[in-house]
Amino acid sequence: MDHEITRSDLIHLEHIRAARERIQGMVHQTPVQVHASLNADFGAELFFKAEHLQKGGAFKARGAHHALSRLSPELLANGVATHSSGNHGAALALAASRFNTRAFVVMPTNAPAPKRAATIAYGAEVIDCEPTLSAREAALISCVNATGATFVPPYDHPDIIAGQGTAGLELFEQIGPVDLVLVPVGGGGLLAGVSAAIKALSPQTQVIGVEPAGADDAYRSFYSGERVTEHQPDTIADGLRTTLGVLNFDMIRRHVDAIVTVDDAAICEAMALYMTRAKEVVEPSGIIGLAAILAGVIDVRAKRVAIILSGGNVDLTRLPW
Amino acid sequence: MDHEITRSDLIHLEHIRAARERIQGMVHQTPVQVHASLNADFGAELFFKAEHLQKGGAFKARGAHHALSRLSPELLANGVATHSSGNHGAALALAASRFNTRAFVVMPTNAPAPKRAATIAYGAEVIDCEPTLSAREAALISCVNATGATFVPPYDHPDIIAGQGTAGLELFEQIGPVDLVLVPVGGGGLLAGVSAAIKALSPQTQVIGVEPAGADDAYRSFYSGERVTEHQPDTIADGLRTTLGVLNFDMIRRHVDAIVTVDDAAICEAMALYMTRAKEVVEPSGIIGLAAILAGVIDVRAKRVAIILSGGNVDLTRLPW
Repeated sequence: MDHEITRSDLIHLEHIRAARERIQGMVHQTPVQVHASLNADFGAELFFKAEHLQKGGAFKARGAHHALSRLSPELLANGVATHSSGNHGAALALAASRFNTRAFVVMPTNAPAPKRAATIAYGAEVIDCEPTLSAREAALISCVNATGATFVPPYDHPDIIAGQGTAGLELFEQIGPVDLVLVPVGGGGLLAGVSAAIKALSPQTQVIGVEPAGADDAYRSFYSGERVTEHQPDTIADGLRTTLGVLNFDMIRRHVDAIVTVDDAAICEAMALYMTRAKEVVEPSGIIGLAAILAGVIDVRAKRVAIILSGGNVDLTRLPW
Repeated sequence: MDHEITRSDLIHLEHIRAARERIQGMVHQTPVQVHASLNADFGAELFFKAEHLQKGGAFKARGAHHALSRLSPELLANGVATHSSGNHGAALALAASRFNTRAFVVMPTNAPAPKRAATIAYGAEVIDCEPTLSAREAALISCVNATGATFVPPYDHPDIIAGQGTAGLELFEQIGPVDLVLVPVGGGGLLAGVSAAIKALSPQTQVIGVEPAGADDAYRSFYSGERVTEHQPDTIADGLRTTLGVLNFDMIRRHVDAIVTVDDAAICEAMALYMTRAKEVVEPSGIIGLAAILAGVIDVRAKRVAIILSGGNVDLTRLPW
């Protein structure tokens, strides 16, 4: 399941434009939300790209639909498979249903209940496994061998990255150039795609990855120059516990200006603030950009700042405060 | 503080149109939200009028701004006062700030923390009192006597009702005639105003009030023909614990087709459903229309149904499940 990465795998704006053509009508063009009271609080112009209102409640629908749109009818006929503890599994289920094929999703037993329920509701066949990477990979291999389904990885793949990048392209078309774009980083699919789009369209815009302090492998990779593969994530931001991908790391090094980390307390505070002021439900991973502003890690004063709200799938019975 | 109600106090569409002219630019024209997955679940076309996105997070801003717009400069100069455990106090504070005057808000000590905080943040001078009606009235009278402020009642007043009615006028202009309109009922300001607007614009539309089973005074008043003034509300819908007003009752009897009740369990279920699917934060009082549909109290199959989401101010640290 490894990808050999060559320079030619790198995703450019043209790939992202092509991805957008392919998924048009399959996923939503999400709105950009502006809140006067938050702007007043921070003395900045904040633009929230509302991917929590995307199909399936997360940006993942973009990459999943794009990846499936690139499979041949023969491959598609055998179904698609992945492992996921959350939004990618649900997105793959949605995309499989759109392409009239089956989705097999290997899920660890500790996946958040609403994400598991959504994945099943969207029609996936869920295969339970222990919550370790080796158990996930073993279950996936055995599923692929048994069914002939095509593995669609959650982030470390050019088609996925190009699909997620459409969020950046759309954002630019909606609000024009900004000073800063803040993007959550877990596996790095969204950050790799969005940074490629934004840097091509507006080279002077700073693109900043935001990561939980308790899952800071992208931060350490970025500043050491070597991809960290061992880490024990400990954060409420369940969507950002994954390890930075290979292709993702390569692209992020080229296009991203900085990666910052924030602790879970700031994530909780940002989540409560956005839910109270904007009356919108966002998940911890989704609101991490605002958490970085709240924590004072990023100076936004008098700037135009775009914040990608990556998802809104949260267990409302288990809010983190 | 009682109002003598005569026929001429009744609010008609012309008053509501005039109110809309007066408050234009001071309050938001809120969007109407549509969710394909909820429509599929219920086999209906559901239109959610998003008053939780109104200034201050509730429809109350409409009535408060309208009431203040009708005061003379002399009266305005002395400030305005009310008693409120929630959204009306915050709305009055907002309106007072818009009209450059002071707002005094008598609040019971058990008012929800976020509503108290918002009222203070919007600039009101909050006066604490014990959580009984007599303590509230005593504190209000002493405040009015001391300051010369004008009492702006929360619902039992023509200017308030005309202001709240602008939500119904807007709704009709946004989506045209529907089969049903579901409106929360507490004191009856919103229901009286919206029903007057809707029945004038679309007489065949059924307007239904929805009330918590644990605070069913409007239900009992409506079906007995006599306004119930004694009740011990027990419901999580803190915005609907008030007693139906006199003018409100008179108007509701003329314009409303039915009042139904739902229990708190259905309210919780509806709140979680809307927050999960729509990714929007609504308060228990606000989502009671959807609760009535969920509980099967109202048959919406194959109908066009408007649901007024009256507010979104909820203590996220104390969600009701």
